[in-house]
Amino acid sequence: MQLIGLLRSPFVRRVAISLKYYGIPFEHYPLSAFGEGYPILSAINPVAKLPTLVLDNGDILMDSGLILEYFESQVPVIQKLLPMTANDLASHLKVIGLAMMGADKTVQLAYETQRRPEDKQYGEWIERLTQQIKGAFNALDSEVANNSDWLMGEAISQAAISTAVAWSFNQYALPNVLDKQDFPNLVQFTQSLESLPNFIDTPIE
Amino acid sequence: MQLIGLLRSPFVRRVAISLKYYGIPFEHYPLSAFGEGYPILSAINPVAKLPTLVLDNGDILMDSGLILEYFESQVPVIQKLLPMTANDLASHLKVIGLAMMGADKTVQLAYETQRRPEDKQYGEWIERLTQQIKGAFNALDSEVANNSDWLMGEAISQAAISTAVAWSFNQYALPNVLDKQDFPNLVQFTQSLESLPNFIDTPIE
Repeated sequence: MQLIGLLRSPFVRRVAISLKYYGIPFEHYPLSAFGEGYPILSAINPVAKLPTLVLDNGDILMDSGLILEYFESQVPVIQKLLPMTANDLASHLKVIGLAMMGADKTVQLAYETQRRPEDKQYGEWIERLTQQIKGAFNALDSEVANNSDWLMGEAISQAAISTAVAWSFNQYALPNVLDKQDFPNLVQFTQSLESLPNFIDTPIE
Repeated sequence: MQLIGLLRSPFVRRVAISLKYYGIPFEHYPLSAFGEGYPILSAINPVAKLPTLVLDNGDILMDSGLILEYFESQVPVIQKLLPMTANDLASHLKVIGLAMMGADKTVQLAYETQRRPEDKQYGEWIERLTQQIKGAFNALDSEVANNSDWLMGEAISQAAISTAVAWSFNQYALPNVLDKQDFPNLVQFTQSLESLPNFIDTPIE
């Protein structure tokens, strides 16, 4: 089984970290979706989407959510990263939704401001993305402050992994958009998770 | 329970159609993420992401994949829209991944060419998105030609719903990017699904 994509992508990284918690071995190919990586990637995955996971039977899965849905459904209950009762599941999925939007809008804003020529950047879009990023991480900071079951409880959760990965990525990719001081709960929470062996073993770069 | 978002969004529409197949009642609020809808939506969901699903306990879920993961896990086996064995599940998730990328890249290309001022549009990005859209729907056309279990088998599947919704959306939003004649399997397959009562009852607009 092969996981394709750079760990600087929060979507690749959350899959890599989750697979380690599931105890599922994989090979990692750190391929970029840009530059020289694009034609290679396109030959493996016609949409050139990262992460791409190549299963042992040759099937490819793409999109971190779908990849994790697959493994989450296959592992024994004791190893699952999501709770199974309706209310708990909904509150975890809410947090994951916020984290993934925070990550996705960070990707989009980084693309807009770092990859497009300056005269093709669009102020209205930059403003919208910035608002959405603030909205996502403000909500996550409150979630971290108000919840503890999915944080540092007995077991790691997908909500915890996704939240920490999203925040670390935001600070890595766009260090000047959000001020750390405004997100004290998120900063402290992420520091705790980033010091766990599976996180240290899966660095952003 | 409330589903927020316009049915012209393939992500909103696949959730609406899936909920009907699950037999789960909901109210539908057709709110746009742009223009006057944006501040209203931002007050409900800090990331202004559609679809937003408001559960009866007030929790909000966002992202069609996470919303469907929630309901898929809660409904009785007989009503599930995904298979449960590993190989079947992987092949369905592969198709769903392709369909969602086809839909997502169509959204991005429509945004780039229809919402940004002309002088802010970026040819290199337009070229990339167009290639990704072609890649996704070419792969889906082959999937439709080579598979029948998730197509018009005994039961509807999430792979079938997502594929038909993605293709209908592409043709609706960007009628001049892909030529119908190059996707004969997809055209015929989508016509069959769009004639089902739950699809007719959930029109693009």
